[in-house]
Amino acid sequence: MELTTTFSETRDLSVGRVALVPTMGFFHEGHLSLMRLVRDRCDTLIVSNFVNPTQFDRENDLEEYPRDLDRDRAMAVEVDVDIFFEPELGEVYPEGASTIVDVPGVSHWMEGRHRPGHFAGVATVVAKLFAGIQPDDAVFGRKDAQQLAVIEAMVRDLRFPVEIVAAPLVRESDGLALSSRNVHLSPADRESSLAISRGLFQAAEQIDAGEVRGERLEATVARSSRRLTTEYVTLASLETMVPIATLDQPAVLAVAAQVGSVRLIDNIVVDFEGGRPVPDRGLILDEPSRLGTLP
Amino acid sequence: MELTTTFSETRDLSVGRVALVPTMGFFHEGHLSLMRLVRDRCDTLIVSNFVNPTQFDRENDLEEYPRDLDRDRAMAVEVDVDIFFEPELGEVYPEGASTIVDVPGVSHWMEGRHRPGHFAGVATVVAKLFAGIQPDDAVFGRKDAQQLAVIEAMVRDLRFPVEIVAAPLVRESDGLALSSRNVHLSPADRESSLAISRGLFQAAEQIDAGEVRGERLEATVARSSRRLTTEYVTLASLETMVPIATLDQPAVLAVAAQVGSVRLIDNIVVDFEGGRPVPDRGLILDEPSRLGTLP
Repeated sequence: MELTTTFSETRDLSVGRVALVPTMGFFHEGHLSLMRLVRDRCDTLIVSNFVNPTQFDRENDLEEYPRDLDRDRAMAVEVDVDIFFEPELGEVYPEGASTIVDVPGVSHWMEGRHRPGHFAGVATVVAKLFAGIQPDDAVFGRKDAQQLAVIEAMVRDLRFPVEIVAAPLVRESDGLALSSRNVHLSPADRESSLAISRGLFQAAEQIDAGEVRGERLEATVARSSRRLTTEYVTLASLETMVPIATLDQPAVLAVAAQVGSVRLIDNIVVDFEGGRPVPDRGLILDEPSRLGTLP
Repeated sequence: MELTTTFSETRDLSVGRVALVPTMGFFHEGHLSLMRLVRDRCDTLIVSNFVNPTQFDRENDLEEYPRDLDRDRAMAVEVDVDIFFEPELGEVYPEGASTIVDVPGVSHWMEGRHRPGHFAGVATVVAKLFAGIQPDDAVFGRKDAQQLAVIEAMVRDLRFPVEIVAAPLVRESDGLALSSRNVHLSPADRESSLAISRGLFQAAEQIDAGEVRGERLEATVARSSRRLTTEYVTLASLETMVPIATLDQPAVLAVAAQVGSVRLIDNIVVDFEGGRPVPDRGLILDEPSRLGTLP
């Protein structure tokens, strides 16, 4: 595995079909599953590891974002990554950088309303990665369903010849969606947090049983999470990320909640197969995931 | 010369070092000089011809923008263009497109203040061309000095591996800066418009004689153009496009004025050589340029 710090060396070392997995590090099984998903379809597998300051909207969140570069590198070797790209801040945001990539519409609701500027930060940094690395494929997880929609819209609009690969959300065996932020959950908060995935699974059962009213599905998740500080529970179109009242198209039932000091998001994507809604509960691990530890 | 209408065919036909000359068509000698400038340094010379609606800020200006595609194609053949890319609107702005690329700071003054949204439109369409065509070089004229600075900042910020080639402004033998819009000048307005370049040449002489006070240089141009409706006369930093009071760095002395029904811009770029300011008056043609005719 090559370690690179500049866009130009990363491009120069790339051969054949190039797949990029953009990350902010502190890997868990979810990250590794993104890498495995494209390992065999590409010649050069690049993982970028950059904690992007412009997508953080809350004080302390950036400083407290967990990091463990040595562990990340070792895990990348395990899944046969070719290039591990770890740029310094100035390589991504050169002195004087002011350019912003904004994707109105799809950025408006849910995370967009609760994290002002977040998606402009995401779209801007991903545009830099795509412009500077020129990958053929790029992988994003369905855990961040709205982020995925923002990136898909950005790629379509800016005409990047990049194929976006959507990877399933990965859950612990008890249902908790994997997140680097889970490391900050106290044992009690970790237990409480299960109300979120439990509510989503109940809603998925309702969908399987024919429920299409957004209000009912949202109420199920809200009821389950009532002891947490829920920021939103929303059924939205998967493509436009605009809230919908009826489950009549591919959609996402998304939730954000504050659990102790940690803000968690989770969702069930609802695909349509043969005209019928099929909830995607994600991949559920058999064994506890390896989550890093804090210093 | 190949005619293309999609980004993918344009990419597929490109070999070796690729140079792009983005244009809005209705060619004059200025456009041809941009193409000639990179013809020998590249293997594939691509000219794009797309009248970009998002950079027009005034009613009627878009509809009245002159077009003559047959003539443009014939002139492109003359200078040995390899690919003439003429996309439809939907190829550049696919249905639902909302993504905006904005370059604050460098977009703020002069044209930015007088044409709200203009540079976001320019930066967005050029980002699409760079993302979709992936050129190695791209050529822009110094006639649009602020546009050039916006593109240079955008390329630096978004990490596009594109070298920006700055081409000299080209003038008629009497000093008028070439512009596709000149076709709309009445004979009387064309005569009046010479006050602009005359003022800039006088300021250039003052610079040669040691004048560094921005106010004096601006006043010279304003005095010469006093019978026109001048929008601004500004001495600005060439890199940041922020107004400066003293000519102590590479700069542009830029002017915009309404002449009859036509809005004209012109400038003198001031380079520094051996610590001394050297005004660039542009290339002055010996013979009248070939400007298209309106139907």
